[in-house]
Amino acid sequence: MKKIRTAILGATGTVGQRMIQLLEGHPWFEISSLAASDNSAGKTYGEAAHWQLETAIPQAIAGMTVEQCRPTLDCDFVLSGLPSSIAGQTETDFASAGYPVISNAGSHRMEPDVPLLIPELNPDHLQAIEKQRERLASKGFIVTNPNCSTIGLVIPLAAIHRKFGLDAVHVVTMQALSGAGYPGVASMDAVDNVLPAIGGEEHKLETEPLKILGNWKNDAFEDAEMRISALTHRVNVRDGHLEACSVKVRKETSPEEVESSLAGFTSPIDDLGLPSAPRPVMILEKDADRPQPRLDRDRAKGMAVIVGPVAPCSVLDFKFRILSHNTIRGAAGAAILNAELLYRKELIG
Amino acid sequence: MKKIRTAILGATGTVGQRMIQLLEGHPWFEISSLAASDNSAGKTYGEAAHWQLETAIPQAIAGMTVEQCRPTLDCDFVLSGLPSSIAGQTETDFASAGYPVISNAGSHRMEPDVPLLIPELNPDHLQAIEKQRERLASKGFIVTNPNCSTIGLVIPLAAIHRKFGLDAVHVVTMQALSGAGYPGVASMDAVDNVLPAIGGEEHKLETEPLKILGNWKNDAFEDAEMRISALTHRVNVRDGHLEACSVKVRKETSPEEVESSLAGFTSPIDDLGLPSAPRPVMILEKDADRPQPRLDRDRAKGMAVIVGPVAPCSVLDFKFRILSHNTIRGAAGAAILNAELLYRKELIG
Amino acid sequence: MKKIRTAILGATGTVGQRMIQLLEGHPWFEISSLAASDNSAGKTYGEAAHWQLETAIPQAIAGMTVEQCRPTLDCDFVLSGLPSSIAGQTETDFASAGYPVISNAGSHRMEPDVPLLIPELNPDHLQAIEKQRERLASKGFIVTNPNCSTIGLVIPLAAIHRKFGLDAVHVVTMQALSGAGYPGVASMDAVDNVLPAIGGEEHKLETEPLKILGNWKNDAFEDAEMRISALTHRVNVRDGHLEACSVKVRKETSPEEVESSLAGFTSPIDDLGLPSAPRPVMILEKDADRPQPRLDRDRAKGMAVIVGPVAPCSVLDFKFRILSHNTIRGAAGAAILNAELLYRKELIG
Amino acid sequence: MKKIRTAILGATGTVGQRMIQLLEGHPWFEISSLAASDNSAGKTYGEAAHWQLETAIPQAIAGMTVEQCRPTLDCDFVLSGLPSSIAGQTETDFASAGYPVISNAGSHRMEPDVPLLIPELNPDHLQAIEKQRERLASKGFIVTNPNCSTIGLVIPLAAIHRKFGLDAVHVVTMQALSGAGYPGVASMDAVDNVLPAIGGEEHKLETEPLKILGNWKNDAFEDAEMRISALTHRVNVRDGHLEACSVKVRKETSPEEVESSLAGFTSPIDDLGLPSAPRPVMILEKDADRPQPRLDRDRAKGMAVIVGPVAPCSVLDFKFRILSHNTIRGAAGAAILNAELLYRKELIG
Repeated sequence: MKKIRTAILGATGTVGQRMIQLLEGHPWFEISSLAASDNSAGKTYGEAAHWQLETAIPQAIAGMTVEQCRPTLDCDFVLSGLPSSIAGQTETDFASAGYPVISNAGSHRMEPDVPLLIPELNPDHLQAIEKQRERLASKGFIVTNPNCSTIGLVIPLAAIHRKFGLDAVHVVTMQALSGAGYPGVASMDAVDNVLPAIGGEEHKLETEPLKILGNWKNDAFEDAEMRISALTHRVNVRDGHLEACSVKVRKETSPEEVESSLAGFTSPIDDLGLPSAPRPVMILEKDADRPQPRLDRDRAKGMAVIVGPVAPCSVLDFKFRILSHNTIRGAAGAAILNAELLYRKELIG
Repeated sequence: MKKIRTAILGATGTVGQRMIQLLEGHPWFEISSLAASDNSAGKTYGEAAHWQLETAIPQAIAGMTVEQCRPTLDCDFVLSGLPSSIAGQTETDFASAGYPVISNAGSHRMEPDVPLLIPELNPDHLQAIEKQRERLASKGFIVTNPNCSTIGLVIPLAAIHRKFGLDAVHVVTMQALSGAGYPGVASMDAVDNVLPAIGGEEHKLETEPLKILGNWKNDAFEDAEMRISALTHRVNVRDGHLEACSVKVRKETSPEEVESSLAGFTSPIDDLGLPSAPRPVMILEKDADRPQPRLDRDRAKGMAVIVGPVAPCSVLDFKFRILSHNTIRGAAGAAILNAELLYRKELIG
Repeated sequence: MKKIRTAILGATGTVGQRMIQLLEGHPWFEISSLAASDNSAGKTYGEAAHWQLETAIPQAIAGMTVEQCRPTLDCDFVLSGLPSSIAGQTETDFASAGYPVISNAGSHRMEPDVPLLIPELNPDHLQAIEKQRERLASKGFIVTNPNCSTIGLVIPLAAIHRKFGLDAVHVVTMQALSGAGYPGVASMDAVDNVLPAIGGEEHKLETEPLKILGNWKNDAFEDAEMRISALTHRVNVRDGHLEACSVKVRKETSPEEVESSLAGFTSPIDDLGLPSAPRPVMILEKDADRPQPRLDRDRAKGMAVIVGPVAPCSVLDFKFRILSHNTIRGAAGAAILNAELLYRKELIG
Repeated sequence: MKKIRTAILGATGTVGQRMIQLLEGHPWFEISSLAASDNSAGKTYGEAAHWQLETAIPQAIAGMTVEQCRPTLDCDFVLSGLPSSIAGQTETDFASAGYPVISNAGSHRMEPDVPLLIPELNPDHLQAIEKQRERLASKGFIVTNPNCSTIGLVIPLAAIHRKFGLDAVHVVTMQALSGAGYPGVASMDAVDNVLPAIGGEEHKLETEPLKILGNWKNDAFEDAEMRISALTHRVNVRDGHLEACSVKVRKETSPEEVESSLAGFTSPIDDLGLPSAPRPVMILEKDADRPQPRLDRDRAKGMAVIVGPVAPCSVLDFKFRILSHNTIRGAAGAAILNAELLYRKELIG
């Protein structure tokens, strides 16, 4: 089988590095181009990147020459790990030039014809691509994945919403340092401390799930109807976002039944055999002192969402904790899984 | 002025050490006895204690001989920093033998004739002492302070409750390591991690405020009527409990008015001149990225509660963050402040 | 091929857990018994162990019943991860009863007929087993691996010593928390701190290398002749001991030649195909800011020793840094590699 | 008494903030100007500074307008906390314009007529000012303090050198994060990690002590004769540099006598009553597990050097550990103490 040629935008950053790590030995995709800032362009990747991961830079990658982020890359699609500040224009340029763009950036997530995709939840949202292509007058398009803290939250929410209908969601996050990229959070701010109110993050948590859990209907996205309130925090943890979540449901039920809805969740993509799709997508933990970032973030290669026991909440109805690996399930792995779905659907390749 | 002779039970523990530190140079109290486990009894305090604080052991204290926790200590009252496992019986023994016992332990907090005291909030609860003395058939008695995570929470709640009436409170804590005592949390559990569900803590947060905010009426405590839901976590921070709190109020109001109720809070003890009482008891911070444990825990010598900006909550009504120093305002300082009120009320000394 | 039945003593501890993790899917060995304290005996392993590792407990292991540490286990040899306090007698009991004992404990390391084995360095020390068997009047015997901080140090020392002759070694360690076991170091001691002078560790570093680098001659171990001085510290790192080392050599040479001696090191076991043996055993890093615990400890599955660039030392001759994974290369992996050598030499199985 | 008007250069940085904190309530000096980068100039200090310290910004300071670093400030002398990258030219400009410049920067430390001053050790080096003034053709001049890691080291070295003569010094540092300024070290590099080889730091440690312990003779500095070898590391500690030091002395002696030389050290400035001078300048700790950064860095208000027990070293002669607060004794406090000496000597004011 001939592999699909993949370009990575923002290849030297935190998310770009994870994309490279996760694509090593990928059965369908191979990295054909690495692109980054003009600063890095022209250098070998080994020279340009301040590699932050515990596994070594793949040999073949270290020697590749970094290119500029211009829509002349030789590839079948691009994975974008660009920071939002420059993703907006650059990704549009690529899509307009005919490239499928699978993006982790926030810039285009809420656009009315851009899918905010989690393959296990809303693969039908890919229908929006058609409309997007018309707008761009191009065969290219943009598909995005949600913010890292949204992904961990919305997967269990989807399971509960489908069974019992969600009325309200209250979430308090304890997010890992890697979510801020590199250099990101100063060590003097992180040591012996917690940082409240990550910029813009609360708004993302309160709005992105509505789009994801909503429908594509009459050529437009229709938000799910529920209220979400979020309080975010950065804690002194390298990887793994922990979220304390309380929900109010529309249909009376019990903690046991909520747990069953989580444990028994099935997805429309279960039978597609996507290489990065975890089976199951959620792992339910029975111990009250789980999930924990260090012990649980790497389960199912960092692609599963770990949910702790469900307890009654005297203010809303139920409460539980969620953990997901923010740079794998919440970013690089999310984008790759999106690309896998698009390949299966013959939208790339 | 002759100083009041104070004995410290559990003097070698984390709370006991803070009591000693905070009493250094106290205008009213002087330490006359240090008592701890049989293991430590007979040694000098300098030998017996694994001193954990940044300031040195006070010279005079280091040379004192540690005594056993038996009700034969030569003092006017006892401050108890005992762990709950042994506080129950020991404190009862002291009270029955005629000692005023000012306790930080959980054992007697919810007893029907034991005040769960925060001087700024419910000094009238001291009326219960009379009934307690009858039960014990002793002039001795027990007064307790709340759990460390409760104290930071209930002070702002009291201000809001008084003005607008609280219907429901949702709180998610990020608590410091020192709250678990010494050796407490293993470093392997703390590094690069968050530990969910601190044992018993959620129940305390959901019940203690009801007693504190309630009334002493017809010789009994009557709980305040509100629902509280808590999710607790241990984070990699030395001192300072951060809490993310959302509230539903009974009377319509605005974030600005809630902030005013916090900033303008006055207390019945404001004019008593208690040496450890912070003025004001709450400090309102305007920046969304505050309070932070490292930067704010030591304000007003660790006795103030720092509250961040109040924002609308789309699920309940308002949300904000709270920080308090868990071993000062939340434990040793709380007990000392209680003792100061009792002294002013001529219940000790 | 029938697998060799392996019992693990101290199976619930930090080292025991790593042994279990590393033996999952081992080509030669299978775990037949798990033994631990009387406290744990009778429970399933899943119940008895407070599992600390990022990978899950192997399914088959979780359900096994923990046995007592008595020499009646049904196995071909025992791997001991016991704490030193009880390893001394227990291991002797097993050896006397006929079991080969591959131990990570400190108890028997310096005995005159017990090999202190690093397969890459001193496989000929296995000759001492014959003498040991005579003493014990048993076909059983004990083979030990060095202390975790010694292993990382002595492998590069061996390379330099072989080529240039070592006169003096000065080493300052920055050791990981996991080296103290569980619960081990209290988080209050670890956070925002460094702990000097790990108990007994400096003596081990100053003496164990002399035995390892020495010879078995005329039925006795003869120490290598060199002076070693060590200063040890515990730092706030989960895994991976970093050591700053300066050496004085007997034969004049250059930093480049010392680096060559490290990079070009070959071992007598290179051709034995031991499954856990890293190839090469040492990895030389060229960047001055390497090795780093987080980035380098897991290289070669935690079994390699990473050495930074060699620089001239104006007090001794050369200086460089060393990193090794303390619970893999420095403990569980070291013991398993020893067992593999013994199996190849037909001393077990 | 009229206070000396003090300007702070680099007032918004890590060192500048400490200078402001330490000068609050200073008996001799008052802050008359705050200067920083053009970015900050024109703002109030409260707006311009990202305040990092546990104590609040002094009220009067928060409202002051930040000025540019130009030699037109209205003050009697300047304290410079500038980064080295710009300190070189800026400080020369100030000195040439007639200002006494008391600098913490590295730029001018090794110049042949600039004192590298530690008041307790080499106050006679101030003689060099005369020559410097000639060169600059100004009444202004520059006096520097050593690098933060040098200060902690050289104070005990001075005591030993004076009594026994130092032949060689081997030092391995474990340095705090605050030494890198703000934002400084990225949290992703600091968490669960140690960073080797702080840029340029080893060279400073190997050369600055030679100047400090040397003599001003015939209008020139003459280095002390000894060899120093340094290996530096950044550890996950907020404040407090720990150093593991081994020394070779010229005159035979014992660990006890070395300890006596440290404990009994007296300084030429002991009788000058400088407000920031700690008495004694060194504190000798008897416990092998001390000094520790968290427990010992704040002793004597962060101005003392804490030395652990002295032990024999089998490679050199003696070994011991040193701790000093890097932003107080090692930077801001050092500069202020220098200014106090200069005031006493009537070189400023």
